[in-house]
Amino acid sequence: MITGRYGDFHTLRQQGGVAGYLKRCESHFDHFGAGHASTSISAALGMAIARDRRGESYKCVAVIGDGALTGGMALEAINHAGHLPNTPLLVVLNDNDMSISPPVGALSTYLNRMRLSPPMQFLSGSVEESMKHLPFMGGELPPELNRLKESMRRLAVPKVGAVFEELGFTYMGPIDGHDISEMTRTFQAAHRVGGPVMVHVVTTKGKGYPYAEADQVGYHAQSAFDLDTGKARPSKTPKPPSYSKVFGQTLVKLCEQDSTVIGITAAMATGTGLDILQKAIPAQYVDVGIAEQHAVTLAGGMACQGLKPVVAIYSTFLQRAFDQLIHDIGIQKLPVTFVLDRAGIVGADGPTHQGQYDISYFRAIPNFTVMAPRDEAELQRMLVTCLQHDGPAALRIPRGPGEGVPLMEEGWEPLPIGCGETLCSGDDLLIVAYGSMVSRALATADLLRASGIEATVVNARFLRPLDEALIHPLARRIGKVVTMEEGALSGGFGAALLESLSDHDLMLPLLRLGIPDQLVDHATPQQSFEALGLTPEQMKERICNRFEWEASKTGTTPETPSLLKR
Amino acid sequence: MITGRYGDFHTLRQQGGVAGYLKRCESHFDHFGAGHASTSISAALGMAIARDRRGESYKCVAVIGDGALTGGMALEAINHAGHLPNTPLLVVLNDNDMSISPPVGALSTYLNRMRLSPPMQFLSGSVEESMKHLPFMGGELPPELNRLKESMRRLAVPKVGAVFEELGFTYMGPIDGHDISEMTRTFQAAHRVGGPVMVHVVTTKGKGYPYAEADQVGYHAQSAFDLDTGKARPSKTPKPPSYSKVFGQTLVKLCEQDSTVIGITAAMATGTGLDILQKAIPAQYVDVGIAEQHAVTLAGGMACQGLKPVVAIYSTFLQRAFDQLIHDIGIQKLPVTFVLDRAGIVGADGPTHQGQYDISYFRAIPNFTVMAPRDEAELQRMLVTCLQHDGPAALRIPRGPGEGVPLMEEGWEPLPIGCGETLCSGDDLLIVAYGSMVSRALATADLLRASGIEATVVNARFLRPLDEALIHPLARRIGKVVTMEEGALSGGFGAALLESLSDHDLMLPLLRLGIPDQLVDHATPQQSFEALGLTPEQMKERICNRFEWEASKTGTTPETPSLLKR
Repeated sequence: MITGRYGDFHTLRQQGGVAGYLKRCESHFDHFGAGHASTSISAALGMAIARDRRGESYKCVAVIGDGALTGGMALEAINHAGHLPNTPLLVVLNDNDMSISPPVGALSTYLNRMRLSPPMQFLSGSVEESMKHLPFMGGELPPELNRLKESMRRLAVPKVGAVFEELGFTYMGPIDGHDISEMTRTFQAAHRVGGPVMVHVVTTKGKGYPYAEADQVGYHAQSAFDLDTGKARPSKTPKPPSYSKVFGQTLVKLCEQDSTVIGITAAMATGTGLDILQKAIPAQYVDVGIAEQHAVTLAGGMACQGLKPVVAIYSTFLQRAFDQLIHDIGIQKLPVTFVLDRAGIVGADGPTHQGQYDISYFRAIPNFTVMAPRDEAELQRMLVTCLQHDGPAALRIPRGPGEGVPLMEEGWEPLPIGCGETLCSGDDLLIVAYGSMVSRALATADLLRASGIEATVVNARFLRPLDEALIHPLARRIGKVVTMEEGALSGGFGAALLESLSDHDLMLPLLRLGIPDQLVDHATPQQSFEALGLTPEQMKERICNRFEWEASKTGTTPETPSLLKR
Repeated sequence: MITGRYGDFHTLRQQGGVAGYLKRCESHFDHFGAGHASTSISAALGMAIARDRRGESYKCVAVIGDGALTGGMALEAINHAGHLPNTPLLVVLNDNDMSISPPVGALSTYLNRMRLSPPMQFLSGSVEESMKHLPFMGGELPPELNRLKESMRRLAVPKVGAVFEELGFTYMGPIDGHDISEMTRTFQAAHRVGGPVMVHVVTTKGKGYPYAEADQVGYHAQSAFDLDTGKARPSKTPKPPSYSKVFGQTLVKLCEQDSTVIGITAAMATGTGLDILQKAIPAQYVDVGIAEQHAVTLAGGMACQGLKPVVAIYSTFLQRAFDQLIHDIGIQKLPVTFVLDRAGIVGADGPTHQGQYDISYFRAIPNFTVMAPRDEAELQRMLVTCLQHDGPAALRIPRGPGEGVPLMEEGWEPLPIGCGETLCSGDDLLIVAYGSMVSRALATADLLRASGIEATVVNARFLRPLDEALIHPLARRIGKVVTMEEGALSGGFGAALLESLSDHDLMLPLLRLGIPDQLVDHATPQQSFEALGLTPEQMKERICNRFEWEASKTGTTPETPSLLKR
């Protein structure tokens, strides 16, 4: 708002508008791009080292939330910065007692103690209290003991802020983050300290807007709302329940049936639907805070000792735990289930949050079974499949509403591992679609049929193992293959099928549809699909171009997006 | 040694022998597999939660080194464990003041303060000292003040161990880790505490063997040595300088020429060759400790402000910073150079340390230029290429000696980005090799030539962008393609070429040689190459089989490894 973007603020998170996260290319006030938590101290320390090394003299300030502070890399950075007493660096800890969800962990409890107890007051009070109970004193503290009191205070002061003080920081605070003059004074004092300083600022999330203060979780990423009532503007069209909600509800049922099932998330309870489990069966729910690496290895430990952990983390955040997936789950073949929410196009959050890499990074992790449901009913069956599988398993679900198919309340049958299904048959073309692209594949096949092109559509279900027994004969017979995935094409699902065909000496013309090697900017999901050429109309067009079939006979010729005109 | 493996200890880290790291499938005493640092608290906490949830009563103990404690996920786990006062968990901090290299960071300084100052002594001493200087006291402390002293001690005690105490742990220590009876007593006391306990144990790395105590870095992973002299047994055959050493020496030269170049590692100074820079130009060297995530984002911050960071981390450890590579370097297009050491087969360290995933995981990261040199001379040129490139760049080098080619002392010319080279020409077969496989490709081509098969060999140099202008016409003309890479085949280099050919409608028989979807056990590198069918003899055989050429006419028919007989 104060960096020249006020005028465009009404375009926030809309296609072509202002981004929701810091973006270097958007403003020179955005010194470092952001999206995932816990990075600011590392980046600011890098800048401070560069400044000193080049003999420059500007100030480097990192702002970090109390939720973000629990992320391991923030603590790595504190450990490094605290070791550089001659490198001035100001870290502002914005302590609003919230991440996306209320924060968890010992650090949060610790900060709460500090928030509630202004340091000087608490300590002098405590010392005075102790002295009152000394046998030879009692009552008022005699003036002669003032220096003793001071001496004791000096000894005891590090107790408040001790964690940061012991790690080499000068700790200042807590101060009121809504008192501008107090903040100005404190920051000025902080900049006079030569080395790393932590200023602990206490704020209220949503300050000044009562509805936001009252519902801090709900307003973390509130959609458009009525300013007077604070209520979200109702969606014009009713939508089926989201994948996340169906997952959360189904997991509750499975937890009820089996007390060894346990849901784990990393500060994403609401987003993943795990808040439903949290409310229903808190004993079978764990939120570790912003700590994806720990979440994964914790689940590995649980699986060793007979629990069945289900780890629900967004696709984009699970990138943080890539090594732990390999080492602590994959290599050890531990039966842990991963549910990757927001896998694919995420819309308004933009490039940092697109779930576009998980298909390709999961392909090489040893021993994993990897799948994606075509709809929310298949999600239920896949969840049961993962839980019954004696090994690492992962499934990905997209952001947003399901397909609106009927759901079962119980009695879900597991799917046979590695088996896809044929949804419709045709001799001109084989479309193999993965997960959320299956419904789009069917829509594309309908459009093709209207032009006289008959396609077989396969729901692959499994990325790993791929259903070669189903797909290879179809590919050989039909001779033309299209793959569809909501993820990066480089090393993705289509690549997996191409590799498999090539390894079996099946050299066929193949078109891979998915996310090319580019960032996907913030927009509505539908706008993103259009920009990527992934609407059914566009995919029909691209298929016709690739196989040199006559374009649409229906008269509508959707434009090929510019990114494809290479 | 005490878990039933003493008898096999002479087979340590040898093919078919005892592994160098914890391995669940090797012994039921190995409760959790390990390889990368900082995981033990997470895994043990998961086990402790499982224990309590299932109403069982065994004890859970995590052992963690002081070096490993700086890894972010260890701190994430402490934050979680400290929040569970009713979940008994013992964390043994093995503080030997060493990781692979001497540890760095504020936490290490903090531990050192604790090591040097047994808590009670230090504090009572300090309190007594303060009191002596009070005006109305002086000299001996009057007996009436004994309770005051006690009260002050209670206030001040948390100062030692404060970081852990404030985070919810009961802190005990430091104790002598070489005094068995003191350890037994302390551990028994620790198990009586209801919640999380941290026992701080001080040990000496290499204790009892003077040569190991004297050279703790050198003995971290010592090869076979003479027990009496402590000297490594000299290698029978002289070897060319390692890739790591050539990298380190070249970086020193580049740092001398440009004071904005800065080398960064994460506790791998010796392994990466960065110790050469550390000694030569300490001002242009940073070791952040075991903190790969922070290392990457720190480099991003430096690049924003005009430094040219070169981050040297093993391929396997860089997995820890996958998300930071995407967000803090790739998406932001920051000019940071990554040198991935130990990329490919690592030998005795086994599955947890194989550098087999980096080719596939780097392929999808936006904006990166990715390359691998065919020999140590090309490494020098690629390092210059990366540094001159205005964007993210990564190069991978294998473990061990270079090819023994002549090296230049200065004046390295950068390579044109995205350009490979043709090394020899033939019309029967096109071999496209990446990095360390180029020399093996040439050896394979020699063997093929001896059987009358003429191969063109291309040194791809770049994974991204791929030299389609060079490779496609050759592939089209020759019609048969083999790819060779020292990395996972799933989504790897061969897959990249296959995708590129398919996208350009070139459907050709193609054989991808590399690491299939399996773990590579500990062995000598040569044994691993044989187990994977990647010796030139085996590759020749596999090529002949794939293209149905008559096998070797020379009379030697190397056996196809069993893993390929599927």
